[in-house]
Amino acid sequence: MIKKVLIANRGEIAVRVIRSCREMGIKSVAVYSDADRRSLHVRYADEAYHIGPSPSNESYLNGDKIIEVAKQSGADAIHPGYGFLSENAEFAQKCSEAGIVFIGPDPKAINQMGDKITARQTMIEAGVPVVPGTQQKVSDMETVRKIVDEIGLPVIIKASAGGGGKGMRLVRKAEELVSAVKLAQSEAQSAFGDDTVYIEKYVESPHHIEFQILADRHGNTVHLFERECSIQRRHQKVIEETPSPFITPELREQMGQAAIAAAKAVNYVGAGTIEFLVDANHNFYFLEMNTRLQVEHPITERVTGVDLVKEQIRIASGLPISFKQEEVKQHGHAIECRILAEDPFNNFMPSPGLIRHISEPNGLGVRTDGYAYEGYEIPLYYDPMISKLIAWGRDRTEAINRMKRALFEYKITGVKTSIRFLERIMDNRDFRLGNYNTHFIQEHFDELMKTETKGDRVFEDMAIIAAYFDFITKMEKVAMSDFAVSQSENWKTYGIKRSLIPY
Amino acid sequence: MIKKVLIANRGEIAVRVIRSCREMGIKSVAVYSDADRRSLHVRYADEAYHIGPSPSNESYLNGDKIIEVAKQSGADAIHPGYGFLSENAEFAQKCSEAGIVFIGPDPKAINQMGDKITARQTMIEAGVPVVPGTQQKVSDMETVRKIVDEIGLPVIIKASAGGGGKGMRLVRKAEELVSAVKLAQSEAQSAFGDDTVYIEKYVESPHHIEFQILADRHGNTVHLFERECSIQRRHQKVIEETPSPFITPELREQMGQAAIAAAKAVNYVGAGTIEFLVDANHNFYFLEMNTRLQVEHPITERVTGVDLVKEQIRIASGLPISFKQEEVKQHGHAIECRILAEDPFNNFMPSPGLIRHISEPNGLGVRTDGYAYEGYEIPLYYDPMISKLIAWGRDRTEAINRMKRALFEYKITGVKTSIRFLERIMDNRDFRLGNYNTHFIQEHFDELMKTETKGDRVFEDMAIIAAYFDFITKMEKVAMSDFAVSQSENWKTYGIKRSLIPY
Repeated sequence: MIKKVLIANRGEIAVRVIRSCREMGIKSVAVYSDADRRSLHVRYADEAYHIGPSPSNESYLNGDKIIEVAKQSGADAIHPGYGFLSENAEFAQKCSEAGIVFIGPDPKAINQMGDKITARQTMIEAGVPVVPGTQQKVSDMETVRKIVDEIGLPVIIKASAGGGGKGMRLVRKAEELVSAVKLAQSEAQSAFGDDTVYIEKYVESPHHIEFQILADRHGNTVHLFERECSIQRRHQKVIEETPSPFITPELREQMGQAAIAAAKAVNYVGAGTIEFLVDANHNFYFLEMNTRLQVEHPITERVTGVDLVKEQIRIASGLPISFKQEEVKQHGHAIECRILAEDPFNNFMPSPGLIRHISEPNGLGVRTDGYAYEGYEIPLYYDPMISKLIAWGRDRTEAINRMKRALFEYKITGVKTSIRFLERIMDNRDFRLGNYNTHFIQEHFDELMKTETKGDRVFEDMAIIAAYFDFITKMEKVAMSDFAVSQSENWKTYGIKRSLIPY
Repeated sequence: MIKKVLIANRGEIAVRVIRSCREMGIKSVAVYSDADRRSLHVRYADEAYHIGPSPSNESYLNGDKIIEVAKQSGADAIHPGYGFLSENAEFAQKCSEAGIVFIGPDPKAINQMGDKITARQTMIEAGVPVVPGTQQKVSDMETVRKIVDEIGLPVIIKASAGGGGKGMRLVRKAEELVSAVKLAQSEAQSAFGDDTVYIEKYVESPHHIEFQILADRHGNTVHLFERECSIQRRHQKVIEETPSPFITPELREQMGQAAIAAAKAVNYVGAGTIEFLVDANHNFYFLEMNTRLQVEHPITERVTGVDLVKEQIRIASGLPISFKQEEVKQHGHAIECRILAEDPFNNFMPSPGLIRHISEPNGLGVRTDGYAYEGYEIPLYYDPMISKLIAWGRDRTEAINRMKRALFEYKITGVKTSIRFLERIMDNRDFRLGNYNTHFIQEHFDELMKTETKGDRVFEDMAIIAAYFDFITKMEKVAMSDFAVSQSENWKTYGIKRSLIPY
């Protein structure tokens, strides 16, 4: 059994992994960059080691340094979280060579799924449906034209080494084909150092639905149902939920079986996610496999009760999965909102900086996986996620209403956040009806961006006043003046009058 | 349907009720005393009204004032929470006369269950087992002796109007009987203005196990299983869990049916709790009924998924309970710890005051129902509960380990808390084995109070240092000095050296 785990990550996911380690009686080792010296994961771990300057390349992506710290600290395993080194087969290999357990799949499986074209070929052989398109890398325009003639427009050009929408181009008209391929190639070259692309049929009105799987070294592979991830902005997930309001029980069963087949095809071991595209007619196609824990894993945890990090550690220790397929059920409905430090009403500009006041929601059915606190400065070096807010309900309507309540309670001042944008999605009629696909944000963009209402404004004022009262009390320099108190009374009893704010 | 609810309470339970109102789209009205001006319930409600000075008698117990505010604000219902006016039949009657819905049972049911002797008689008639003892009030010593001859020693003398252990006396020897009755009578007189007592057989090694029930005006009465509440100190619950590690499925079924019979015997409507004593041989006896929401209701919510406050509001609106008995199941295991502002290692002395730093646990399976925040001053006027910490697990062991993890993460500075005491209970071998009854704390008192270990001390230092770093950053007066940083590194990497703390 693993006894001490180094977490090769930062932010909320490092905190997440430390929590499960502690519950299992396993020691945790944090690593941190200059910028993360005061981060929560450093405080929660049993030990913490500085590994380098703030830029990821010099810290969280420095695999050799991390392995060195693991050895020094006596850690017998490394959990990579998501991002950074989590899907780096070479790093997994190096861990293994250093006698340290990499909590994830074997390097071979990472490679097989990491290259999109290899993955696609493997899926075809395993009988898992894929989007019609090329089965090999494409470089000359002759081949491109031939393929497009076969599968028909619209098509999508994708970078073989890609992800996150980079090196991707949609082509609806034949005359756009040449320039689209060239653009995709040059984007792929600069983003991934590899200009290989491939071509797929473009699926109209698609849903992005993924299945969580777990596989151990005892021959067990199970799925933990789906996550509906179609609420995206520029190919980045914004809101996820489970169960999907779109799929039927029959389709769920079919996709679950396909997900298990996909994992088995690469002899997968550990936690992984099979992403599918589902079209309006309920046809589903393998998109890719993420060979790591997903950001949105907590919604699966909430409806199934399974602690996915604990299962990862069990599996990496050589133990079997702690339950059988038939024992895992979906209880109720869970939704996750990603709380980002960005300004949704100013082109989603990142908004790092000092958190002056933070008050997180809580209570029945609410979970916050975060790492920020009052006085913490969100660094500009990493992704701008402050936390993940998860709301559960007995049914989808209760989960949405609870999420709205939680977003209302969530107060952060000092940085801009996506909270108000998320509230607007929760209020959107099509979202409430479960009537959406991956084009949702694009299609409702104007409405979601509309000029702030009076309600919004009042809401912001409340946060400011709350922060103000907190501030003066904490300073203990001044007692709250009678004037301020009287305004506070007005504010609560009669509604906020902006002109009355005392500064 | 109810549209606007006034919450006649404060602290965590006021916040709890406001949350469910908001999720149901119901407006909430807070009331507050002088001391609670800056309390979280005031911020979370849609409206808030000042009702008087800090002492409860002049604010939260001033029913007439509260009804006046309800009328003024246009609230059509009052939720009393627990404590204060929640079991005051006269207040419920006054609400009704003012045309305001009292979210709770009818005044008659409150009265029937409020008087312990009437309640006992009603239960005997309904076929619910009660502890052998008097069926009428006792005043003369002749009757007392006769009864004790019948039921045998040991016996317990209880105040008819009592609660919370006041007016209670245990008698093991015949010669102690006279003085015990006299003492109980005089205590009852001074605590409740009523010296009536009654006599019960004293149950050895008892478990305190209660059943949550819900009853609507459509003839439905259901139970939501038990809560094991035997971890008590001086008759005050400290830790609660569900399912009980003590009872069998058969006993659970029998007690559930008895709880339903008890509620039906008084035509109960709303949420209520039937408390039972269970002896070592699994005999159970009706103890009393609490005609309101219990402090420990969240553990029932966690294992059943039912929002009890929403059900209360539905029932008060005339709607049926939202589920059937056969639909409600126990999923996994939940434990609640009460986090109190008190010093467990100094005779549990209350410790109100300014919260300088608070950092609450979160993540999978953890819920905190609280109302404190950084800069908030816990008033000395009310009970010293800061929050309730609820941990869920797939089984009891996971729930305990998760609670331990959550208690570890819970950092409060500025006031003393019960956190470390609760951690010790979680570590106790008998507690972990589920091997305990109501005498647990008394029996393990020395061990739970033992001199602080090195581990404890290190833990405290970490909280202090964390608060210190927060403090200097918030002030923004000084940058963190190199010296402090270097100590921080030592502290995390090599363990805390007390001598190195920079102040």
